[in-house]
Amino acid sequence: MLDRPNQSIGDLIRARAPGHSLPADLYRRADVFEADLDVFFERQWALVGLEADAPNPGDLYVIDVGRASVIVARGDDGELRAFHNVCRHRGARLREAGKGKARKLVCPYHRWTYELTGDLFRAPHMGKAFQSACYGLRKVHLRSVGGLLFVCLADDPPEDFADLEIAMKDRLAPYGLGDAKIAFENEIVEAGNWKLTMENNRECYHCPGGHPELGVTFIAQDFGFDPDELSPQGRQEAARHEAEFARRTDAWEKEGHASRAIEHLAGHVTNFRTERLMMGSDGRAQSATMDGKPACGRLLVSNGRTDLGDLHFWTHHSWHHYMCDHAVVTTAFPLAPDRTRVRSVWLVHKDAVEGVDYDVENLTRVWKATNEQDARLVGIAFQGVCTPGYRPGPYSSFTERHLDDFATWYGERIRDAGY
Amino acid sequence: MLDRPNQSIGDLIRARAPGHSLPADLYRRADVFEADLDVFFERQWALVGLEADAPNPGDLYVIDVGRASVIVARGDDGELRAFHNVCRHRGARLREAGKGKARKLVCPYHRWTYELTGDLFRAPHMGKAFQSACYGLRKVHLRSVGGLLFVCLADDPPEDFADLEIAMKDRLAPYGLGDAKIAFENEIVEAGNWKLTMENNRECYHCPGGHPELGVTFIAQDFGFDPDELSPQGRQEAARHEAEFARRTDAWEKEGHASRAIEHLAGHVTNFRTERLMMGSDGRAQSATMDGKPACGRLLVSNGRTDLGDLHFWTHHSWHHYMCDHAVVTTAFPLAPDRTRVRSVWLVHKDAVEGVDYDVENLTRVWKATNEQDARLVGIAFQGVCTPGYRPGPYSSFTERHLDDFATWYGERIRDAGY
Amino acid sequence: MLDRPNQSIGDLIRARAPGHSLPADLYRRADVFEADLDVFFERQWALVGLEADAPNPGDLYVIDVGRASVIVARGDDGELRAFHNVCRHRGARLREAGKGKARKLVCPYHRWTYELTGDLFRAPHMGKAFQSACYGLRKVHLRSVGGLLFVCLADDPPEDFADLEIAMKDRLAPYGLGDAKIAFENEIVEAGNWKLTMENNRECYHCPGGHPELGVTFIAQDFGFDPDELSPQGRQEAARHEAEFARRTDAWEKEGHASRAIEHLAGHVTNFRTERLMMGSDGRAQSATMDGKPACGRLLVSNGRTDLGDLHFWTHHSWHHYMCDHAVVTTAFPLAPDRTRVRSVWLVHKDAVEGVDYDVENLTRVWKATNEQDARLVGIAFQGVCTPGYRPGPYSSFTERHLDDFATWYGERIRDAGY
Repeated sequence: MLDRPNQSIGDLIRARAPGHSLPADLYRRADVFEADLDVFFERQWALVGLEADAPNPGDLYVIDVGRASVIVARGDDGELRAFHNVCRHRGARLREAGKGKARKLVCPYHRWTYELTGDLFRAPHMGKAFQSACYGLRKVHLRSVGGLLFVCLADDPPEDFADLEIAMKDRLAPYGLGDAKIAFENEIVEAGNWKLTMENNRECYHCPGGHPELGVTFIAQDFGFDPDELSPQGRQEAARHEAEFARRTDAWEKEGHASRAIEHLAGHVTNFRTERLMMGSDGRAQSATMDGKPACGRLLVSNGRTDLGDLHFWTHHSWHHYMCDHAVVTTAFPLAPDRTRVRSVWLVHKDAVEGVDYDVENLTRVWKATNEQDARLVGIAFQGVCTPGYRPGPYSSFTERHLDDFATWYGERIRDAGY
Repeated sequence: MLDRPNQSIGDLIRARAPGHSLPADLYRRADVFEADLDVFFERQWALVGLEADAPNPGDLYVIDVGRASVIVARGDDGELRAFHNVCRHRGARLREAGKGKARKLVCPYHRWTYELTGDLFRAPHMGKAFQSACYGLRKVHLRSVGGLLFVCLADDPPEDFADLEIAMKDRLAPYGLGDAKIAFENEIVEAGNWKLTMENNRECYHCPGGHPELGVTFIAQDFGFDPDELSPQGRQEAARHEAEFARRTDAWEKEGHASRAIEHLAGHVTNFRTERLMMGSDGRAQSATMDGKPACGRLLVSNGRTDLGDLHFWTHHSWHHYMCDHAVVTTAFPLAPDRTRVRSVWLVHKDAVEGVDYDVENLTRVWKATNEQDARLVGIAFQGVCTPGYRPGPYSSFTERHLDDFATWYGERIRDAGY
Repeated sequence: MLDRPNQSIGDLIRARAPGHSLPADLYRRADVFEADLDVFFERQWALVGLEADAPNPGDLYVIDVGRASVIVARGDDGELRAFHNVCRHRGARLREAGKGKARKLVCPYHRWTYELTGDLFRAPHMGKAFQSACYGLRKVHLRSVGGLLFVCLADDPPEDFADLEIAMKDRLAPYGLGDAKIAFENEIVEAGNWKLTMENNRECYHCPGGHPELGVTFIAQDFGFDPDELSPQGRQEAARHEAEFARRTDAWEKEGHASRAIEHLAGHVTNFRTERLMMGSDGRAQSATMDGKPACGRLLVSNGRTDLGDLHFWTHHSWHHYMCDHAVVTTAFPLAPDRTRVRSVWLVHKDAVEGVDYDVENLTRVWKATNEQDARLVGIAFQGVCTPGYRPGPYSSFTERHLDDFATWYGERIRDAGY
């Protein structure tokens, strides 16, 4: 046989050659998938949505995380809380996935009724000895970082999440996500493993040819290149861009707009990366649109600046673009070894009016197209790595350094969890 | 990880806290599902249908039981016999599931031909040395209890099935199921584990709000209640009903209509329960219809009595209502850990004529609606117990005693089978 | 429990009684399925198609074999080569299954580009140290036997494939498959295990009644019969046919048309069987059509002979009929324990013109109908053997000898592979 099916997950991690893609079994085996859910979606902080998903008291937002279903509820006091979407009586699911509104959470089975704080309000026929206080909904840790909602299903969430909070709170502040408005959202189910989804997102090696719409305002050079492949003229242009990029970054930083890359990967529990990049080949594009102009007349940024480029942000299962007029937040959740749910949300200023300030088609065109293109690429990558002809291949040291780092971090986390 | 996937089935059984619902793995694990098929559908007597499913010589009734397919055939001698639906040559399925008619059973593959007694009649090209007598269809134990057909796939069926036979033969006699007519039948596939289907059926805690049609003639009080939740007036009414119910039961019993509850659960191999209950809040309803009146003008009972209420009967995978004008027999068969086939049959007197004596819509409305409502509840129960937020919850000692008993019996059977 | 799920694959093989069908688990267990892919589709030579699937330089033919996807490419030099359909970079699938045309193979992911020889032509951003020569496509062994394309995924293909090559090269030569034309092809997915597909094909016990179209030109007697079942007249006719068949075989052989059966099964690694048979009850039919006449006016055979009957050929997963005017080549590939892809190709002379020399409906009627009939039989066989009522049954020593041989060979190969 070409595979050794009895290799432990730890063996598979150890089998990875540095600088090379992962062994096939890490993408396709059911036990690895279960381990991934455990380690990366049930022990880690997972980004489940935005405050804009439940903006008002009584709003409910229900989402699957790992093997769990979580209710995010905004109470009458305006506070957001998260609970397991499971009745404490006989385990019935309280609410379907999606958004809703309620004053109390009533189980459809036997009418056990909970407050939006999670407290059990009423349970019929349980007798005098029944201790209601012991049967509130099971809480899930919840944090809002500048309007981004993270939950953690573990009893003891990773402590170094504070690093992410500190880094991103200031960076996100000008974008006012706490009360931004969701202009559009969609979901794709990619036919591949979630790690391939994330690897795909962490490089722009595939951008030329693969992403014509994104190519209008993305500068592939910023994601790495082999200088020896450039013509003398190309090398001059690259040097010119590098200097201009350095100049802008300095200027942004001096003005108080944190821009330089921060990268927490290998050696950290919580994985994130952020960097502010210029947009458009001349650096004058203001938004990821087909003409580089803002898609929304009412700017998202509170400071009115249209020259702050694109603030990139990644967690281990999400990627983000914060621009002057809108933001795009995309999260990936594993559904099966070969299926990954990818949700994208387009955010605009809370007062922006569709049809007046923005056109949804224009706003969403670049990333909708890009997501669909990526879904196809993830699909063929998954098809290939599942066949016996696959051998882990070499990463480009110029364009795929972030993948190598991700793979190293991935292995560290799996092994740290005892697999 | 939140679960311990290596717990044995026996460990899971032992892990159940008395008075609490089952650990999640007993509902969702594939190996538990296989054990359930083995213990509860291949070793136990399973209720597969009615004599009315094969009323005449040459009638065939083919049904899946556990992992098997069984042919019930009524021979030219009028006798019912059951066989494995598998050719003794190379194993081809002889007949599709459902009802049919044949003089002989001919394998569609190589034309091996069997009598309706199971004997091999002809097998071409097998030569002189071939011993036809050794290649009859493999027999399955079959018993009719008052017209209900039970099969057992095990070599040695449980002996205490005799208790069920003794108890039910007399109780069922007046309903004449042996030659009743099937007025309607349907199947639902519920999106949940079969044990959730049975648990749901064993309590009426969920009836208020959940079953408006059934509520017309069901008296929730008979299925338990917390007296402390009643108003003084409610308590008076409850006491009045209790006295009336005791009075009627006495009267029924004196007249020779066995009515008092018999319950064989923990400590027994064969699981059954029966009890006659009054119908309608005033005890005057005669049938489970929207007006409490008989749905069929030609009564099912041979004694002409319309005041004998609803004779309830449960086995470990079926539930029954015998009323003056019609009966409803419902069986549940596990298809997968998360899928259960539920078949209901509405029976009327053999001479009742559709459109004259009964209207199918009126006859079936209550239990068709109830089954659909239950299917939804089983679905959300299964969704919830499969998530890591689930913890087995407390049963109400007033309304869910039968579930606790069922869970205890379930554990005994599994362990007795050596798991 | 009726099954012992912990039996090893070797135990299952040893459990087979000689002269009996296989134990159920060999048809249905997932680990046996994986072992089958390994032993019979990844270690053995597999017949993947015909030269006619990629007749011209630049033609590509992509097919799944076992767990692999293979590209067959005809280079500018006219040579056919086979490769794993997996990019050496990050494993993306290069081409979808089916036929196509290309000058180079360009990975849709990062544009790594390969020659049709498999050599890596270009890989951007990989730096100076990158050794292109080490990253050509991974080769798959490929052989054309008289126009039939065989691949072997193993490093060391079975050596006794030479026996098949020697036997079939001469036999196939007159049919000119190397430049025949595909007049029609289709695919069926059978709802059963691939071994049931092959067993079904290896006997004509099921032909009477089962295959009316095939029965027009097939002579069931040639596939075995129990002489004791014949009437005195039938015995005379059988003797007459036997003599005529012997006479013709002698005559064919003397003329240089190899016709006598060759059978390599038990004791051989490579499994094949071939024999030339008469067609039609009077031996005068010329082609497998509804009237026994050629379906194509332009003959396939180069020698113009219409009296050479039907040259049968089997490998372990294919069956073939070579007739004067057309050939039918059918291959079976396991997709799952319960799903088998069956592809049939109808070949005619390269210069035959549809609508002029042949009518597709007339050409394909017999084997299209036969394949559909067989698919149904394989389906009911699989349904039956998967139920606990199945016990391996006795093969007819007259009509099912080839199945017993196949089962013996199957067991030898599995055990030889170390299972």
